[in-house]
Amino acid sequence: MKSIFEKNRAPLICTPITGGSEGEIINQLNMLKEHDPDIIEWRADFFTELNDKERVLAVLSTIKKQTDIPVLFTIRAMHEGGEEIPLHDREKTGLICDVCKYSSVNFIDYETSNGIQHLTEIKKAAEKYEKQLILSYHNFQYTPSTEVLKEKAQLAVEYGADIVKIAVMPKNKEDVYHLLEATRKIDEQLTVPIITMSMGEKGALSRVIGWAYGSVLTFGVGVEASAPGQVPVKALRNTIQSMKELLPKWK
Amino acid sequence: MKSIFEKNRAPLICTPITGGSEGEIINQLNMLKEHDPDIIEWRADFFTELNDKERVLAVLSTIKKQTDIPVLFTIRAMHEGGEEIPLHDREKTGLICDVCKYSSVNFIDYETSNGIQHLTEIKKAAEKYEKQLILSYHNFQYTPSTEVLKEKAQLAVEYGADIVKIAVMPKNKEDVYHLLEATRKIDEQLTVPIITMSMGEKGALSRVIGWAYGSVLTFGVGVEASAPGQVPVKALRNTIQSMKELLPKWK
Repeated sequence: MKSIFEKNRAPLICTPITGGSEGEIINQLNMLKEHDPDIIEWRADFFTELNDKERVLAVLSTIKKQTDIPVLFTIRAMHEGGEEIPLHDREKTGLICDVCKYSSVNFIDYETSNGIQHLTEIKKAAEKYEKQLILSYHNFQYTPSTEVLKEKAQLAVEYGADIVKIAVMPKNKEDVYHLLEATRKIDEQLTVPIITMSMGEKGALSRVIGWAYGSVLTFGVGVEASAPGQVPVKALRNTIQSMKELLPKWK
Repeated sequence: MKSIFEKNRAPLICTPITGGSEGEIINQLNMLKEHDPDIIEWRADFFTELNDKERVLAVLSTIKKQTDIPVLFTIRAMHEGGEEIPLHDREKTGLICDVCKYSSVNFIDYETSNGIQHLTEIKKAAEKYEKQLILSYHNFQYTPSTEVLKEKAQLAVEYGADIVKIAVMPKNKEDVYHLLEATRKIDEQLTVPIITMSMGEKGALSRVIGWAYGSVLTFGVGVEASAPGQVPVKALRNTIQSMKELLPKWK
C-alpha cells in the first residue's frame, strides 16, 4: 500500500469523530464529510460501547460504507489525554488487533508509552493486515527538550512506526517556536514522516505552519475538538492552501 | 506622531512603486491603491530624474495628493540592491533631508552601512520634521549569523532608528528558519519594532509567516517587485488575514 503521507508535501488534514453513540458518530461523520478532510479519525475512546467488539466493528463498517475518506482508528489512552474506557490494557490490545484483522480502517494510532508487549502485538497485526501504524507521544503538561522529543521519535521508529506523532503543551510562545524547530530537526533525521503539534490556544500557530517545518498532518475541528487548540478544518484548509500558493518553491 | 508600527501585531503590508518616470509612477500608484496596502514605498532610485530635487518633490506631492496611504521614501543604495543613481552620497543625503523638510512623506528608509555623518544628518532631519526613520541592512549574498544580525540591529538603534529592517538572502531552507529564529531573538531585545525578510523564492515563507516571529511589516508585489521573492500583495494580505483569524490568541 502506498502511503498518502509524504515528506515535504502539503500537510494532510484530519478531523476527529468524538460521538458517544453510533447515532452521534454517524451524524458527525456526515457533517465532517462536507469539509472534505484527507483523513477522518474515529476517537473510539469516546464510544460508550467500546467493550463490545462486534459493535465497534459494526460502527467501523458503517463509517467505511458511508465514506471513501481514509479512516484512522484511535483509542486514546487516558494517561495521554483520552477518555476513560471500560477495557483493560490487554482487552484494548485485543480490540485493536481485531480492528486490524476484521475492519478496513487505514490507520491505527497507539501510544509509544504503552508496554512493549502490547506495542509488538499491535505492530504485528497492523503489518499483517496492512494498516499503517502511527505511534504517538502526548504531553499535556509541558514541551520537553528537543533531545527528549528526538528520543521519543526514535523509540517510535524502533517499535515499527510508519508515522511518528508528537503532541505537546506549550507554556508560552517560546515553547511553540521550540516545537517547530524540534520538528524540522527530528524530520531531518527520521526515515518516516512526522506529525507534530503544540496544543492549546497558544500552540495553534503550529497547526497552521507546522507543515513548513515538516509536519505531514494537522488536525482541524469539524464538529467537536478532540484536543485543545484545534482550529476549524475549513479555515485551516483554506489558509494552508493559500500559503502553499504563495510558496510554490517551498519543498 | 503615534507610529502605525506596533510590536506583536498583525504585520503591515507595504507595496513598492518602481516607475522610472512620473507617468509610470502615478500609473503604478493607481494600480497599487486598489490593493489597499498599509504603506506605499516609493523606490526613488528607479526615478530617472532623481538629480532634480524639484521634480522629486513634485512627484511626492502628486503621490500624496492622490492617496492617504502613508508613504515610505527610499533611495536604495546600489551596494544594497538599489539602482544606479546620478547622485553622490553628499547630494543624496541633501535630497533626503530636503524630502524630510519639504514633503509630507511618513517614512524614510536609509542603510545603516552608510557613513556616520550621513546617518547623523538624516536622523536629525527626520526627527525635526517628524518622519519615522527605518534604518536597514541588506545582504544579497547570504544569511549572516544571529550574532551579526543582532549587531546590525543594535547599530541601527544607536543611530536612531525608529524601525530596524533586515533583509538577507538564504542559500537553503535552514537559512530561512534561521532568519525567523533570529527575528524573534532580536525582537525580544530591541525597544523598537523590527522588519525582517529572507529574500528570493526560497525565502518567501518569511514574507508570509515572519509576523509570527515579530516582523512588523512585509512587502508584497502590487505591480512590479522591488526585491527578489516578493509575493503578490492581495494574496499575501488574504493569507495573513486568515492565519490571524485562526490564531486569535497569538500575541
